[in-house]
Amino acid sequence: MEFKAKDIATLLHGVVEGDPEIEVNDISKIEEGRAGTLAFLANPKYENYIYSTQASIVLVDKTFVPAKPLPCTLIRVESAYDAFASLLQLYDDMVSRPTGIEQPVHIGEGATLGEELYIGAFAYIGKGTKIGNHVKIYPHVYIGEEVEIGDHTVIYPGARLYARCRVGASCILHSGAVIGADGFGFAPDGDGYKKIPQIGNVIIEDRVEIGANTCIDRATMGSTIIREGVKLDNLIQVAHNAVVGRNSVMAAQSGIAGSAKLGEHCVIGGQAGVVGHLTLADGTRLTAQSGISVNTKANAIMRGSPAFDIAKYQRCYVLFRRLPEIYDQVVDLEKKVKKLTQI
Amino acid sequence: MEFKAKDIATLLHGVVEGDPEIEVNDISKIEEGRAGTLAFLANPKYENYIYSTQASIVLVDKTFVPAKPLPCTLIRVESAYDAFASLLQLYDDMVSRPTGIEQPVHIGEGATLGEELYIGAFAYIGKGTKIGNHVKIYPHVYIGEEVEIGDHTVIYPGARLYARCRVGASCILHSGAVIGADGFGFAPDGDGYKKIPQIGNVIIEDRVEIGANTCIDRATMGSTIIREGVKLDNLIQVAHNAVVGRNSVMAAQSGIAGSAKLGEHCVIGGQAGVVGHLTLADGTRLTAQSGISVNTKANAIMRGSPAFDIAKYQRCYVLFRRLPEIYDQVVDLEKKVKKLTQI
Amino acid sequence: MEFKAKDIATLLHGVVEGDPEIEVNDISKIEEGRAGTLAFLANPKYENYIYSTQASIVLVDKTFVPAKPLPCTLIRVESAYDAFASLLQLYDDMVSRPTGIEQPVHIGEGATLGEELYIGAFAYIGKGTKIGNHVKIYPHVYIGEEVEIGDHTVIYPGARLYARCRVGASCILHSGAVIGADGFGFAPDGDGYKKIPQIGNVIIEDRVEIGANTCIDRATMGSTIIREGVKLDNLIQVAHNAVVGRNSVMAAQSGIAGSAKLGEHCVIGGQAGVVGHLTLADGTRLTAQSGISVNTKANAIMRGSPAFDIAKYQRCYVLFRRLPEIYDQVVDLEKKVKKLTQI
Repeated sequence: MEFKAKDIATLLHGVVEGDPEIEVNDISKIEEGRAGTLAFLANPKYENYIYSTQASIVLVDKTFVPAKPLPCTLIRVESAYDAFASLLQLYDDMVSRPTGIEQPVHIGEGATLGEELYIGAFAYIGKGTKIGNHVKIYPHVYIGEEVEIGDHTVIYPGARLYARCRVGASCILHSGAVIGADGFGFAPDGDGYKKIPQIGNVIIEDRVEIGANTCIDRATMGSTIIREGVKLDNLIQVAHNAVVGRNSVMAAQSGIAGSAKLGEHCVIGGQAGVVGHLTLADGTRLTAQSGISVNTKANAIMRGSPAFDIAKYQRCYVLFRRLPEIYDQVVDLEKKVKKLTQI
Repeated sequence: MEFKAKDIATLLHGVVEGDPEIEVNDISKIEEGRAGTLAFLANPKYENYIYSTQASIVLVDKTFVPAKPLPCTLIRVESAYDAFASLLQLYDDMVSRPTGIEQPVHIGEGATLGEELYIGAFAYIGKGTKIGNHVKIYPHVYIGEEVEIGDHTVIYPGARLYARCRVGASCILHSGAVIGADGFGFAPDGDGYKKIPQIGNVIIEDRVEIGANTCIDRATMGSTIIREGVKLDNLIQVAHNAVVGRNSVMAAQSGIAGSAKLGEHCVIGGQAGVVGHLTLADGTRLTAQSGISVNTKANAIMRGSPAFDIAKYQRCYVLFRRLPEIYDQVVDLEKKVKKLTQI
Repeated sequence: MEFKAKDIATLLHGVVEGDPEIEVNDISKIEEGRAGTLAFLANPKYENYIYSTQASIVLVDKTFVPAKPLPCTLIRVESAYDAFASLLQLYDDMVSRPTGIEQPVHIGEGATLGEELYIGAFAYIGKGTKIGNHVKIYPHVYIGEEVEIGDHTVIYPGARLYARCRVGASCILHSGAVIGADGFGFAPDGDGYKKIPQIGNVIIEDRVEIGANTCIDRATMGSTIIREGVKLDNLIQVAHNAVVGRNSVMAAQSGIAGSAKLGEHCVIGGQAGVVGHLTLADGTRLTAQSGISVNTKANAIMRGSPAFDIAKYQRCYVLFRRLPEIYDQVVDLEKKVKKLTQI
């Protein structure tokens, strides 16, 4: 499908500068632009690419002043970045979306299904489960008994929800995510351990995205809670009874231990860890590979394992890297002092 | 379903103090108690909650002496914690448990099935596999050829067992666990690598729990072994030919490399790692995010990456955090010594 | 099935020393050798085992000179290690391999299937997908729309490929691997975040092995690329738009963030991490649990979090472990200098 510069400009409330009839059928990055594609320039540090790009059309901010002649047609818009994001969304919407109920699927007794669903082949929906409207349940998804899934939520192939969990509206759960497996709770019992039954559930509020193969364990009692707007990347561990606050974000392979509470707008870096039973205040940031074992104040930025204030950490780490020289200084001082003492 | 205080007391061999007729239909935490629920008080640091809890009934140790008037009915028992755990277990047992064989399932030629099984829809059981009695195999479970599964084992949705692995009795495997994938073995071959066939298997003994999305690789030859009573949390890596000793416990996202041997009662913290071919003695503890690269003596507690004795580590880390001040001390000393030398 | 020493020797172009008629039916490690098995001795540090091994036959290098009498028959070959690897491969080939198409499976409209396939029950193949010849697709595999799979590739149970991804020839994808889930891309939007559509794909070239539960996210635009010969272990994260260069190897639980580029023959240790947008030169090695945040030169070996040159790191870490003594030296110096100053 080909789109003309003039039509794209109309769509984006922009102005064409160059050939209004030139056509594109794909999008590209400005540094890898190919003929017949549309790119964008938002970050000034990429500006030099625009003078040699092969892209046929480039979206630019309306204030952009070229320093050299341009090989491409421009569309000037209020914000090139926002306009491009809108185009990405349109492109994404054009991709065919599955609909209907494929066969075979397993629908348990008493399950209720909303309207305009997609349910892929080999999906399993347990007894008494309630599925909202416009939900997409891909193949091999397992949903246990008495689960609730809100409207417009998408569950990708092979994600699993154990019994009695609840997922809000407009959520996305990626492949292999496991929601509601037993919390890791054992009591010593003679030589070994006795399992503590995990009878709680997981509650995921609205507009949450859960990455591939991420695990959120059910609470021992009560609920493990993922608040609205939270974004979890892949391969994350959220242990039993944890709470992740509104609009918080966790990067891949990070984990939070049992009963830890994250406030709103927290950011947990990749491969970082949060010790159990902590409370991280709103806006806490933990850098990648750090491990936090203390409660924080609002907007704290923490680094290290165990973590402390990032500015202090960085001073310490700079000196760690200089330890050989510092040690030489100490040895040198010892010699000099020995000499002085012997005088 | 409502339960009266007097009936619960009888069940738990306890004594009611308050209203023997008061009814509950759920359990709650004392700090989040709601009317119509039962909570417990075992840890003295939660005592203040009992004076304002909304819970209708609270289990307490028989020795508990209230410091103020109480808003709830008490049941005094030998140990409030143990009594509560028993109630959790009863509650858990009341939840409906699936039984029977749903359709479609795939049962390979020559597979033998025990009695009183649950096999969920879309489960796959390979040729010649032996399933014991009272086993629960949830939907989307894959069990390859010639696998053996012991009595009373539960395999949650989408767990996978490759060919020729063996699982003991009373084990629990959570969703997405992968047992018996190829060990990561390659030999240099010109410019690239040649795969070393992984022809061994995985043996999981009795009473083992394996968390969601945890991976245990098959041995190159022989067996990767998880001894009885071991508890593995989610997203753990156990590499080929490793052995995890009896009643050892590994927290989420930890990993052990090829051919490492853990003794009995070891505890591996979250996101920690064990280098290949090591031997950790019985009772070794490795703290979260640590990485161990040396063999240990019994009951060693290790920290750091690479890890060493925890007490020594903590002294070092305290000084790491004070490096800026220590460096200032050194610089100050240099100035003073320079002055002294110039005299 | 029994094999005679003389027949194995013929197969491996070796020479028997001992009983040419002795038979074996399995292979074992020399340190765990059992009667009726064949073992090998390649690494001289295992030599002492050969004098007491129970193995009936041991493969040795043709140059091996025993220091004591031997309890076993020898087969002398050019390289005991290579000969043993060949035997492992023969053994592996003898294991029955599934063939044919089991039922039920879902084959989407317009999908094209090559020859001599295995497709296991409950596998899902999306619309317009192209499967090459001699491909094995195990049960519960999900392959989305318009995916391409090259000849001789094996996809183990429950691996998932999202729409429009491409996998080359002779690849192995283990259970639970997720290829092509959305990259983790969000733009701030008022109080929360707005999803950036991820319209790219993942390209996996030839002879790549992907471990169990490893995740490779699709690109925002363009492709996340895994070059030929790459070996990824279990539970790895490869974020959107990353590129892993030819014959590079990543150990379990490591991760690389968005748009990072690894050169050829890089080695990333277990639980290590690579920061987004970095470029690691050919032959870069990052040790286990390290985190790299700078571009590297060819063949750099890096350690620490953040990582720097390994030789320097090790000097620093030795001194870190000695900080208590170094601090004592500083305090002692202070006392001495104070005394000197007071004179």
